[in-house]
Amino acid sequence: MLERFKVPHEDEVLVPADSLRGTVAAIFQKVGVPRRDAEEGADVLVATDLRGVETHGVSNMLRSYVQAYKEGRLNPRPNWHIVRESPAAATVDADGGLGLILGKRTMGLAMEKAKAVGVGAVTMFNSGHMGAVGHFAMLAAREDMVGMCSVATGAGIVPTFAAEPRFGTNPISIAAPARKEAPVLFDAATSAIAGNKIGLAARVGANLLPGWISELDGTPIMEEMPVRERGQYYQLPLGGTREQGSHKGYGFALMVEILGSLLSGSLPGMLIGAGMGTLSRSYFAAYDISAFTDLDTFKDTMDQMLQKLRETKPAPGHDRVLYPGLSEYEAELDRKAHGIPLHKEVIQWFNDTTSEFSLPRLKTL
Amino acid sequence: MLERFKVPHEDEVLVPADSLRGTVAAIFQKVGVPRRDAEEGADVLVATDLRGVETHGVSNMLRSYVQAYKEGRLNPRPNWHIVRESPAAATVDADGGLGLILGKRTMGLAMEKAKAVGVGAVTMFNSGHMGAVGHFAMLAAREDMVGMCSVATGAGIVPTFAAEPRFGTNPISIAAPARKEAPVLFDAATSAIAGNKIGLAARVGANLLPGWISELDGTPIMEEMPVRERGQYYQLPLGGTREQGSHKGYGFALMVEILGSLLSGSLPGMLIGAGMGTLSRSYFAAYDISAFTDLDTFKDTMDQMLQKLRETKPAPGHDRVLYPGLSEYEAELDRKAHGIPLHKEVIQWFNDTTSEFSLPRLKTL
Repeated sequence: MLERFKVPHEDEVLVPADSLRGTVAAIFQKVGVPRRDAEEGADVLVATDLRGVETHGVSNMLRSYVQAYKEGRLNPRPNWHIVRESPAAATVDADGGLGLILGKRTMGLAMEKAKAVGVGAVTMFNSGHMGAVGHFAMLAAREDMVGMCSVATGAGIVPTFAAEPRFGTNPISIAAPARKEAPVLFDAATSAIAGNKIGLAARVGANLLPGWISELDGTPIMEEMPVRERGQYYQLPLGGTREQGSHKGYGFALMVEILGSLLSGSLPGMLIGAGMGTLSRSYFAAYDISAFTDLDTFKDTMDQMLQKLRETKPAPGHDRVLYPGLSEYEAELDRKAHGIPLHKEVIQWFNDTTSEFSLPRLKTL
Repeated sequence: MLERFKVPHEDEVLVPADSLRGTVAAIFQKVGVPRRDAEEGADVLVATDLRGVETHGVSNMLRSYVQAYKEGRLNPRPNWHIVRESPAAATVDADGGLGLILGKRTMGLAMEKAKAVGVGAVTMFNSGHMGAVGHFAMLAAREDMVGMCSVATGAGIVPTFAAEPRFGTNPISIAAPARKEAPVLFDAATSAIAGNKIGLAARVGANLLPGWISELDGTPIMEEMPVRERGQYYQLPLGGTREQGSHKGYGFALMVEILGSLLSGSLPGMLIGAGMGTLSRSYFAAYDISAFTDLDTFKDTMDQMLQKLRETKPAPGHDRVLYPGLSEYEAELDRKAHGIPLHKEVIQWFNDTTSEFSLPRLKTL
């Protein structure tokens, strides 16, 4: 994550992961989520914060989930069920449940299929927010599989040359295991930046950079500027402008619609007039590595490749070359040992919420 | 394709597709490729030119293939064979054959698996150049499937913050059928621009734009400039700079390595010191739409979505909004009727080559 998005040191409060997990699970239960689902939701959120992905951890997401449960826009006790199935494929109806909580079960189905026939691909429709989709890709990587997960949601991104928004930020993720190196976990919005980064930039007082947002007539804004109010901009696809490859960001966003929305028999966001509350359509895939090649060879080659990337000579002005998942892995080690930094404003929200629900206060360090 | 890459009108010669296909197949046979394979190779190349994708059609590619066959770097009679297989997965050894010719057979295997169990994913190693990978994704779309194909090849792209190149341009493609609208065909290098575009820019005298290439120390070049000589630059990932999302282009390139190189049990380009002649590792996937949802619903929704995109209000200075595959579909209709424009310098190469091989001259319009 760019420095500009990080919580300023003077505003941060350190929280131990266990304490955060317990409080989040308790809050989920207070809005009607059964205990095991509440624990799963807390686990995904805190795992995301442990990896340093603040945009999709508790700070940005939990309050919107709580609000959605309170307003009846999320179903706390969904009837997750398979609507179509074959040995390598399935489509699941999430019945309005939170995707973040149901993702593990859906990826589990893809992994079962991969174990049986080599590959499993499962689409899920009618779910609430998914959180960081890379979390689900990683579930497969932990079981010696390659995992992928993407989600189509919202409609705030303008296609190349367009004056009207048509796509969500539609992130794509892939995870793969190594032996000594950190597992690869690539998880990226197909827009120039994740939607949540704009909220995060507003909270930490950071500017937006050229090529991230457009005017309301679709013209890319090519200068740095403070965050505008919601409704005063659209987001641009990865690439920003046609010359810099925005048609590729646009194409990847469309790929996510095809795999998630279309294959699950759903409408894409642009056809349902999507706002923030719209349900999402997602895609989960698992590849059993040993169905393709020797697992040990795979892991050895992963180690060699990742070491080579990590040891690549950096360009002037940079300390080192990363691979996707490396800095998040390092953040996880650090935060497990020293706590998760939350913005003091987030702590205030926790205090208000635990007070409202008559729960014990969140423990901080 | 950006205007800057198009053949200038005064330099173009129109060639009928049938004539081009016949001459290309005859040339392939002269370098040792059996008739049916030669026809398949000609078919893929000409289909690519018909769609207006000059970078991967006869102009840029055929001469390098001929050269590679002549120098023994391509096997004209490869023993394509499956090395590992399960109901939804397989890995294929291409035995040094041209990927462009073998891709149909490999995608065919993925499609067979998809018909049987819902999804098929096949990796192929040890092949020569694949041409435009979207061609193979489209084979699945024609059979009411979603098709994907990607290829890992070469090592001329610098990762984000790196001073040394580690990846090929590693394109990813997806194709999906509609009913009345043109099928979606997205096919894009995960680098800022395709490698072949640099050769094309040199031939048509176009400048390279900011964010496309780097200095030899990895620093992104952020001004427009003429094409440099090979060896005087590296290519940048999609995004160009970290701020504009080059870590995402880098991540997509790595995804292609994992699906193609690692899953097929091969080494990525960065571990084999890849040059232009290096064999490539590819990934083919087919999703049987009816294994996930109702096929008619899928196609109707595709039509609605693509019409909505096509009719989206354009931003100032633009005529219309495209979707991936639309302008290529229009080019195909036009070129089937009026011929394929080739640069006069390419016609000269054909004349030299048919003369060398004692073949009839390429017929032009």
